[in-house]
Amino acid sequence: MGITVNAKKYVYFFGNGRAEGSARMKDLLGSKGANLAEMTNIGTPVPPGFTITTEACIHYYANDGGYPDGLEAEIDENLARLEGLTKKRFGDAKNPLLLSVRSGAAISMPGMMDTVLNIGLTDESVAGIARGTGNERFAYDSYRRFVQMFGNVVLGMKHSDFEQILEEKKQSRGVTMDTELDSDDLKELVSRYKELVEKETGRAFPEDPKEQLRMTIDAVFESWNTDRAITYRALNNISQDLGTGVNVQMMVFGNMGADSGTGVCFTRDPATGENMFYGEYLMNAQGEDVVAGLRTPETLDQLEAEMPDIYGELAAIREKLEKHYRDVQDMEFTIESGTLYMLQTRTGKRTAQAAVKTAVDMVAEGLIDKETAILRVEPDQLDQLLHPMIDPKATVDVLAKGLAASPGAAVGKVVFSSHRAMELAEKGEKVILVRLETSPDDVGGMAASQGILTARGGMTSHAAIVGRGMGKCCVVGCNEIDVDGEAKRFTVGGTVVNEGDYITLDGTKGDVILGVTDLVEPEMTGDFGTLMDWASRAKRLGVRTNADAPHDSEVARNFGAEGIGLCRTEHMFFGEERLPIVQQMILACDEASRRVALDKLMPMQKEDFKGIFEVMKDLPVTIRLLDPPLHEFLPKTEEDVIETALRMDMKVDELKSIIQNLHEVNPMLGHRGCRLGITYPEIYEMQVQAIFEAACELAAGRDCHLVIPEIMIPLVGHINELRFTKERLVETANTVMERYGTEIEYMVGTMIEVPRAAVTADEIATEAEFFSFGTNDLTQMTFGFSRDDVGKFLPFYVKEGILASDPFVTIDQTGVGKLVEMGAQKGRSTKPDLKIGICGEHGGNPASVEFCHRTGLDYVSCSPFRIPIAILAAAQAAVKEMDA
Amino acid sequence: MGITVNAKKYVYFFGNGRAEGSARMKDLLGSKGANLAEMTNIGTPVPPGFTITTEACIHYYANDGGYPDGLEAEIDENLARLEGLTKKRFGDAKNPLLLSVRSGAAISMPGMMDTVLNIGLTDESVAGIARGTGNERFAYDSYRRFVQMFGNVVLGMKHSDFEQILEEKKQSRGVTMDTELDSDDLKELVSRYKELVEKETGRAFPEDPKEQLRMTIDAVFESWNTDRAITYRALNNISQDLGTGVNVQMMVFGNMGADSGTGVCFTRDPATGENMFYGEYLMNAQGEDVVAGLRTPETLDQLEAEMPDIYGELAAIREKLEKHYRDVQDMEFTIESGTLYMLQTRTGKRTAQAAVKTAVDMVAEGLIDKETAILRVEPDQLDQLLHPMIDPKATVDVLAKGLAASPGAAVGKVVFSSHRAMELAEKGEKVILVRLETSPDDVGGMAASQGILTARGGMTSHAAIVGRGMGKCCVVGCNEIDVDGEAKRFTVGGTVVNEGDYITLDGTKGDVILGVTDLVEPEMTGDFGTLMDWASRAKRLGVRTNADAPHDSEVARNFGAEGIGLCRTEHMFFGEERLPIVQQMILACDEASRRVALDKLMPMQKEDFKGIFEVMKDLPVTIRLLDPPLHEFLPKTEEDVIETALRMDMKVDELKSIIQNLHEVNPMLGHRGCRLGITYPEIYEMQVQAIFEAACELAAGRDCHLVIPEIMIPLVGHINELRFTKERLVETANTVMERYGTEIEYMVGTMIEVPRAAVTADEIATEAEFFSFGTNDLTQMTFGFSRDDVGKFLPFYVKEGILASDPFVTIDQTGVGKLVEMGAQKGRSTKPDLKIGICGEHGGNPASVEFCHRTGLDYVSCSPFRIPIAILAAAQAAVKEMDA
Repeated sequence: MGITVNAKKYVYFFGNGRAEGSARMKDLLGSKGANLAEMTNIGTPVPPGFTITTEACIHYYANDGGYPDGLEAEIDENLARLEGLTKKRFGDAKNPLLLSVRSGAAISMPGMMDTVLNIGLTDESVAGIARGTGNERFAYDSYRRFVQMFGNVVLGMKHSDFEQILEEKKQSRGVTMDTELDSDDLKELVSRYKELVEKETGRAFPEDPKEQLRMTIDAVFESWNTDRAITYRALNNISQDLGTGVNVQMMVFGNMGADSGTGVCFTRDPATGENMFYGEYLMNAQGEDVVAGLRTPETLDQLEAEMPDIYGELAAIREKLEKHYRDVQDMEFTIESGTLYMLQTRTGKRTAQAAVKTAVDMVAEGLIDKETAILRVEPDQLDQLLHPMIDPKATVDVLAKGLAASPGAAVGKVVFSSHRAMELAEKGEKVILVRLETSPDDVGGMAASQGILTARGGMTSHAAIVGRGMGKCCVVGCNEIDVDGEAKRFTVGGTVVNEGDYITLDGTKGDVILGVTDLVEPEMTGDFGTLMDWASRAKRLGVRTNADAPHDSEVARNFGAEGIGLCRTEHMFFGEERLPIVQQMILACDEASRRVALDKLMPMQKEDFKGIFEVMKDLPVTIRLLDPPLHEFLPKTEEDVIETALRMDMKVDELKSIIQNLHEVNPMLGHRGCRLGITYPEIYEMQVQAIFEAACELAAGRDCHLVIPEIMIPLVGHINELRFTKERLVETANTVMERYGTEIEYMVGTMIEVPRAAVTADEIATEAEFFSFGTNDLTQMTFGFSRDDVGKFLPFYVKEGILASDPFVTIDQTGVGKLVEMGAQKGRSTKPDLKIGICGEHGGNPASVEFCHRTGLDYVSCSPFRIPIAILAAAQAAVKEMDA
Repeated sequence: MGITVNAKKYVYFFGNGRAEGSARMKDLLGSKGANLAEMTNIGTPVPPGFTITTEACIHYYANDGGYPDGLEAEIDENLARLEGLTKKRFGDAKNPLLLSVRSGAAISMPGMMDTVLNIGLTDESVAGIARGTGNERFAYDSYRRFVQMFGNVVLGMKHSDFEQILEEKKQSRGVTMDTELDSDDLKELVSRYKELVEKETGRAFPEDPKEQLRMTIDAVFESWNTDRAITYRALNNISQDLGTGVNVQMMVFGNMGADSGTGVCFTRDPATGENMFYGEYLMNAQGEDVVAGLRTPETLDQLEAEMPDIYGELAAIREKLEKHYRDVQDMEFTIESGTLYMLQTRTGKRTAQAAVKTAVDMVAEGLIDKETAILRVEPDQLDQLLHPMIDPKATVDVLAKGLAASPGAAVGKVVFSSHRAMELAEKGEKVILVRLETSPDDVGGMAASQGILTARGGMTSHAAIVGRGMGKCCVVGCNEIDVDGEAKRFTVGGTVVNEGDYITLDGTKGDVILGVTDLVEPEMTGDFGTLMDWASRAKRLGVRTNADAPHDSEVARNFGAEGIGLCRTEHMFFGEERLPIVQQMILACDEASRRVALDKLMPMQKEDFKGIFEVMKDLPVTIRLLDPPLHEFLPKTEEDVIETALRMDMKVDELKSIIQNLHEVNPMLGHRGCRLGITYPEIYEMQVQAIFEAACELAAGRDCHLVIPEIMIPLVGHINELRFTKERLVETANTVMERYGTEIEYMVGTMIEVPRAAVTADEIATEAEFFSFGTNDLTQMTFGFSRDDVGKFLPFYVKEGILASDPFVTIDQTGVGKLVEMGAQKGRSTKPDLKIGICGEHGGNPASVEFCHRTGLDYVSCSPFRIPIAILAAAQAAVKEMDA
């Protein structure tokens, strides 16, 4: 039906030193295909072939598995070109061309996609291979592998079914190694395999090489949407809509005899970053054998010794590729009968330590500039460098595995209650708090512990959030352990761990380890220090910390925090000697009795603030007044209710009735934040008094000591809420300052965490000197997601791609982010010099930090151990902006 | 310090046929002051005086009770002018000028503000009055009243303390009526009163008239912010920032003897709207006596018979004022020694019936046009006409008869205090408040009651006015009943009615009926029908109904609903024979078992939809797919859990554990709406199947029968949620339609109720054919208010003026409304023909309907009985827009 003008090109050829593609075409060719083209173009020996574009894959999914017009013809053309170049023919009985087919998306997804080798082998062509190589055993071993791989990957049969036939054969032949089977054995295996294929699939094994190729290409397309690929992309924030390329290449064989082999190598050491040629290989093997780890590979020193020419050629390629790409390369090579082929090169994955060292070294070597070095380290990766780690030299006995909720490692005695944790910690003991799950009552116990282990809960459970906030090693959702808090023990399989027994937690991996393990402390020195210094200079965004205690504040300051962005005062209400007073305050029946309790709390709060002010010295400290609903401070279990009633000298029923009265259907949207401060103004009054007495007393003592409190009213949704609280706050502040005869510079601002606050930010800014976006709550309310309940559907949403990522981890730029932009823009429209920050968990998430930079915020605030991450992310945002 | 140029004018004089103010200056002078000026200008006999502006009051509050510069001088000047005009001197011993001081805000607040009469009476001037009137008893009676009123209103003393002294005096003199006391008694009372004042306040009663005046003006200013005034404004959506004017006027006396009197009259009957002169008066009395309802007043017929000249003059004024204002006037008059004075005119409050009749009549009389008529009826007031009446076929046992003060009928349990009324109402009980008479303290209790019955008072008593305002059925002045509030009972003849006994009130006839009587639904005929017809033609906005059942749908359709805007399908899940199936579905452990239960539900849902489609015929029906979280359908009490477990043949513990698993911390933000439809797609599939089978079966039967389902996906926050559900929905719809061979016209749209949906409405509109703003949930999430928990602080917020009104009643235009505007604008930016409605409770709230009109929405949807209210409000919005 007419002529197609400007038909889309779906296939790109490479070979003989020239390629139609290049490294710049990753989106179209996938990463692997683009690099094969690039390597070909710069003269690296790459087996020739062609790449089918990701657009063909996208078309395949958009059209129920249909190919775009012209694709089949293009494949045929390129196959013919490949035959011409290699002087072999696909499916030929004498000199057959064999092909490998590999998937390759724009973003590398190791292990996620499937590969098929030796396509083109048939009963006819296998004879050609046998003759051509003079090695019948090799030919039939290749054929056996092909049928097995094709059956598994393309036809979806079980790998183990094939392995079983192989095992039977070995047994019947009385051998243990595959290599001990001869060509007749292998021939028979091939025919048994094919029988199995016909039995399982109802169709004979395809003997037409083109059909084999077509089915394999389809299988690559299909493999884009396997559950594990989807999950991987979901977990790694990779869009589900990119599609994969398909790389079709001439086969080369590392298993063709003693002068053949295959290996992987890195241009630098991926674990340490040291500038040394690092790699391993196996002689007489195919790539799969290296990856499978069945045989122990040799190091490159061995290669240098055994095949000095090949080694020399490989070392030259290492040099050429690293210079060309200006980054560490991870390469695959195959030696076929003494000839070296490069099968792949890609940016080398590396540990945090290696990433930092490589980046700093390459600047010194003049390969890259400082800005590029800043971009070379994944901010999230730094987490690995910021916590005590299990000594890499230690041997560990992993008892159970949970979710790696908060990194680092911790060693301590097991305890099963917060009470006990605090008790032992006070005596200087190191403890690990083990709970079914944690609640706000446990905050004191968590703070007193080295690490936290829970049997329930996900990455955003209470334990996980608070653990990360405190920089405590934390393993959650460890279903394998059976916690019996009453009996003070937990069991895993047959192992019983009692209170007082030592365990080690690895929060980076999620491991629970029996006994004491040696740890090593983190340091921000050397290359790490250098990189962070560059990052600090490059960034525009301020980086503050969320901290409620002097120790946390100090840690954060040492990591480079430029102030406190969120000091949550409620954590100060949970201390063991304070909670009863807080409860007395809540249970008071009138303002006068409430004030009696508040008067007792005031000096304690004052000491808290003094401690923090001392540490932060001349840096600003943003203090959020009481936020959670009062019922969070009341006992929950029957036992605690009885105990509390006794202590309070009240009837149990009376206490229960008060608790019942304070119960809320949706506490997240309840009587909390400034709503409390408005209905019980005396609470905020006490807190403000404590802040200003602390500030005045510290200011009085020293000359050049500056205390800069920024008082933050939580949960404001209406300008009048801010007016009401601010008015009283200023009055109390003035009273205290007059009494001390001291003038304290301070600011009053508000959280923007209720959608209405963002929408009416222009009004609210008239009374606020700063905004701090509380993006945790803002995300909850903007999506209508309760963080505590979202586990029922959010994982499904992420898996199905309904949401690209968990919006509590990475800020949702399209929705929540729009409200942040709106709030910032509206706020500055009435108050141009409004200071604007963010203090949700997002403040330590690199993608969110970049968003904050682009949105023109003044600072982000995050937990102490994420400060370097936020600094690096902020620096990267600035560098990217400069580049753009 | 220099000359004040253009100093603000704070005082406006009126008298002698000329006034500085006019009716157009209500904001500045208050309603009362503006009308006094207007009446003066058009030649009505008004006692001369002056008005202090609301700006002075605002200044007073903004400056801690300080007067603006120049105000005192202005008051003095105007006082002098008044002295000149009246030829009397303030505080004069011979011919003293006496003043009344009345508050008067821009918006009338009956009974809420305080009045002081006879200012200027001192021990010296009282003698002048005695001499001038030749009536010493009158002079001292006035003096006694003044001290008492001043003590109560200005000095804040208890009314009852003065009454007690008066009672003692009457007892010691052996008399029962005030009028039986002679001038010596009254003199002594004055001095006893003054002793009480000195004892209670620590200061002597002020003998300086100017001080009396100043203190009274201050008291008027202060009375703007009494708790009851604040509450009234909060209840009536009146801004707390308007301030009140102060009207200072020459006293005239209705209590100067047999040719004096005072009364109130309406230009038309305020209960029925009939065009007849309506009023009541008392001879030898002051205004307070009429309002207090202590003496039962005479009708105007009596006045015509006794004082035909005065009556004639009054009737002429009636004519003049109604023609001038082109609306029903409510006037106060005083006859002093045979001379008529008009003390006030204002727009007459009227029942809904009267409002409708007057509006329609005045169009017929050529006084106003139809548009003005539409504006003349408060939409909310129509509620009165839409509430039930006593079934004409019912036989009733009339226990007593009172005045028919506010129409409609009510059935409820008798209560004797406002406190108890509110208490029971909160528990969902229907109550009738029975009082001797009501006072402003009772407003809350009246609002909580179905109807009000008082033993005393006339048609203009407090109970009658407030009852009519609230549209509450109200019977007043029922002298036959003997109320004993202490003993919690009332008696009529031999019948004793105790608290908790049921009675029925007929506010249209004034009947009190023992027990529960059948009520019937109202109809929209006669004048009401005419007005609604005009309104329907005038409005632009569509008005739909929220209805889940055929009966509701029919009621709404008869009231003029143009379709169903919200059919909540979950109500169909709660039927007695359905709930067990729904529970079976929820407790199913896999999709297959869920489908077994859903298959049983499907035919039931289909019948539901058929019933509704039948009623709505060719009108659109918006069906919302399942919304609430599943745990709402599970048993809550221990008892129900056991029963359900038995029925389901499962272990109680097992059921409890499932319930526990489904429990949510914040169900409002939990696993509900489309989140359910996505994780359990088979539920929506069943519902869509039911909808289309119903539609196909109905469409097949008849030729010109059109069924127009609009399927609405709830709780969408992200475009992908809509995509996911819509895709499956369309598939199911197609399958059903193919099976029936019928093409059904339908739409797929979404609720916009999550803030994120409003923010990303442009994206969402690409997949939606309509939007329906669910402003209930949108308000919850935008404010972060849980509707179930908001009682802990929202009433305080409204009382303190932090929020102008309850945002769940009237849409918050500044915040939630902004999101509605944004959603509508963004939605139409990508889909210009997007149909947009609102289906929250706000759809029946007049102010919110007006907002929807201005925002360009296509329709509002509300409960069936609010349809006429929404229609009228929509018409008013259109008329106002045209006027602007």
